[in-house]
Amino acid sequence: MISLNEAAEYLRGVDHILILSHQFPDGDTLGASTALCRGLQQLGKHAMIKCSDEIGPKYRYLFDGVKPEEFSPDVVVAVDIADLTLLGEPLVSQYGKKIDLCIDHHPSNTCYAARCHIDPKASATCELIYTLLKQMDVEIDQLIAASLYTGITTDTGCFKYTNVTPATYRIAADLVETGMNAPKINRLMFDTKSRAHMEMERRVVDTIEYFYDDRVAVIVITQKMIAETGAKEDDMEGLSSIPRQIEGVLIGVTIREKAAGGYKISLRAQQPVNASEICAKFGGGGHAGAAGCTFNTTLEEAKTQMVSAIGEYLTKL
Amino acid sequence: MISLNEAAEYLRGVDHILILSHQFPDGDTLGASTALCRGLQQLGKHAMIKCSDEIGPKYRYLFDGVKPEEFSPDVVVAVDIADLTLLGEPLVSQYGKKIDLCIDHHPSNTCYAARCHIDPKASATCELIYTLLKQMDVEIDQLIAASLYTGITTDTGCFKYTNVTPATYRIAADLVETGMNAPKINRLMFDTKSRAHMEMERRVVDTIEYFYDDRVAVIVITQKMIAETGAKEDDMEGLSSIPRQIEGVLIGVTIREKAAGGYKISLRAQQPVNASEICAKFGGGGHAGAAGCTFNTTLEEAKTQMVSAIGEYLTKL
Repeated sequence: MISLNEAAEYLRGVDHILILSHQFPDGDTLGASTALCRGLQQLGKHAMIKCSDEIGPKYRYLFDGVKPEEFSPDVVVAVDIADLTLLGEPLVSQYGKKIDLCIDHHPSNTCYAARCHIDPKASATCELIYTLLKQMDVEIDQLIAASLYTGITTDTGCFKYTNVTPATYRIAADLVETGMNAPKINRLMFDTKSRAHMEMERRVVDTIEYFYDDRVAVIVITQKMIAETGAKEDDMEGLSSIPRQIEGVLIGVTIREKAAGGYKISLRAQQPVNASEICAKFGGGGHAGAAGCTFNTTLEEAKTQMVSAIGEYLTKL
Repeated sequence: MISLNEAAEYLRGVDHILILSHQFPDGDTLGASTALCRGLQQLGKHAMIKCSDEIGPKYRYLFDGVKPEEFSPDVVVAVDIADLTLLGEPLVSQYGKKIDLCIDHHPSNTCYAARCHIDPKASATCELIYTLLKQMDVEIDQLIAASLYTGITTDTGCFKYTNVTPATYRIAADLVETGMNAPKINRLMFDTKSRAHMEMERRVVDTIEYFYDDRVAVIVITQKMIAETGAKEDDMEGLSSIPRQIEGVLIGVTIREKAAGGYKISLRAQQPVNASEICAKFGGGGHAGAAGCTFNTTLEEAKTQMVSAIGEYLTKL
């Protein structure tokens, strides 16, 4: 483990730096990669970014002002990557054993690099990159600020999650002070739903069933709905939080038909319910607030078994 | 107009203070009232709050730690009240002409009090009350912080709107530093939907129609839906932003049947559309992003007229 100061010192002394983002890239890994890349380029260094997956249209603005470069790297930096497998192919094979520096906020980080700075108290890796860039005397311009803000707002659900600290708000203040357009980013990240998502939502809301004095709400997602709406994985985001959002609901249950057959059940629970205890009965697991398990039965059978296990749990609560 | 410092000076010198919230009370007027009341009580003063409407269950926690008092006031303070009519009855008649101090952030504030501090740059009146309490040397404890945070997060849509400034984030940082539970407040304010709201959403999403290459989406809310679901005004919150949230939609249109007959149309628009220009054609108005007008016609006639006016507008854009 090294300090951010030591990481800044290290980067100051090197050049031709390759930055790696994790597969299925999100706002934090891409925000951190693009901010770091622009910062290094601002200091006159050569820097480039690689990711095993294509960047979706939603995140392309993060690359505004990143100068496209192509070179054989002297130094490889991984940002927001908890585990080597999350690099995805071809990057694992190419760089898995050659990572010089890792900067991350995941507590599960396996410290796979020659130098690691892991800080689980940071809400987002972008918080760490902000401090790193300041220590390197990079000027935080509007484009760098937009990248860093994107990582912070996406990893905190727009400042809603429990990972938000006073430091998170203070960094956000510094970033918006550059004049970057935070409301536009938040609208794009949180208030924009695809047509396919709306169509899924309509179908899913039609399936809501309530149990146990409305303390439990169950929704169903079938392969037929997915085929009818043409929904991709991105379009499904947020569907499983629908039942838990209903006032008075302690446990929200999402039963999703798998493409290969069988059903995946996701539980979202409010305190004092421990969703992972319920899922453990069926060989699943997770956290108190969110857990899951799998059923290789019919839909009716899966629903009956889960609802009755929840009933038993609630009587003992 | 007086400064916040002068307002603090004034309050330091008085006692038996009545604080007024506006009718249909929201998070900001109640957050500001309860924080100020607790602050004044902490300084050993007598303070109480009045509102023309009953406080809904959602906001009752704001009154935790407010000592119930009843007295004949020497001083009357209005917080977050832009106009005397917003006091509602019976408060307008009782106190309308006797308001000693008004603290507000609405640019439309009519300066109806003997002393006014109006700052439209503040995202919420709670930002102003925070600074006021600090100047009065009140200790911002967890309960005061929870009240102030509630006003700021509700008036900014959880830090999403364009009214958020660096100061907003910095105050939020100071408030969460007290240890108050911000994620719990945000879940309650933004991630909890009533059964009636869910039922309304289900019906409303079923009415979505698209026009002009899906750049315009129209939803309909009828009195029949409201009767069937038993939805109250609170349960309707957020419905009119559904169409505008759909990817690619420039103008979201909500056509709502009025209880007394006729239809109210609300437009929500993205840049560069100016919704108020479109509504002005029908004698309505508003802002570029949100505007409205009224039709005393059938639903079909109202929809046809509005959709064709939007079509004309879009061809000229």
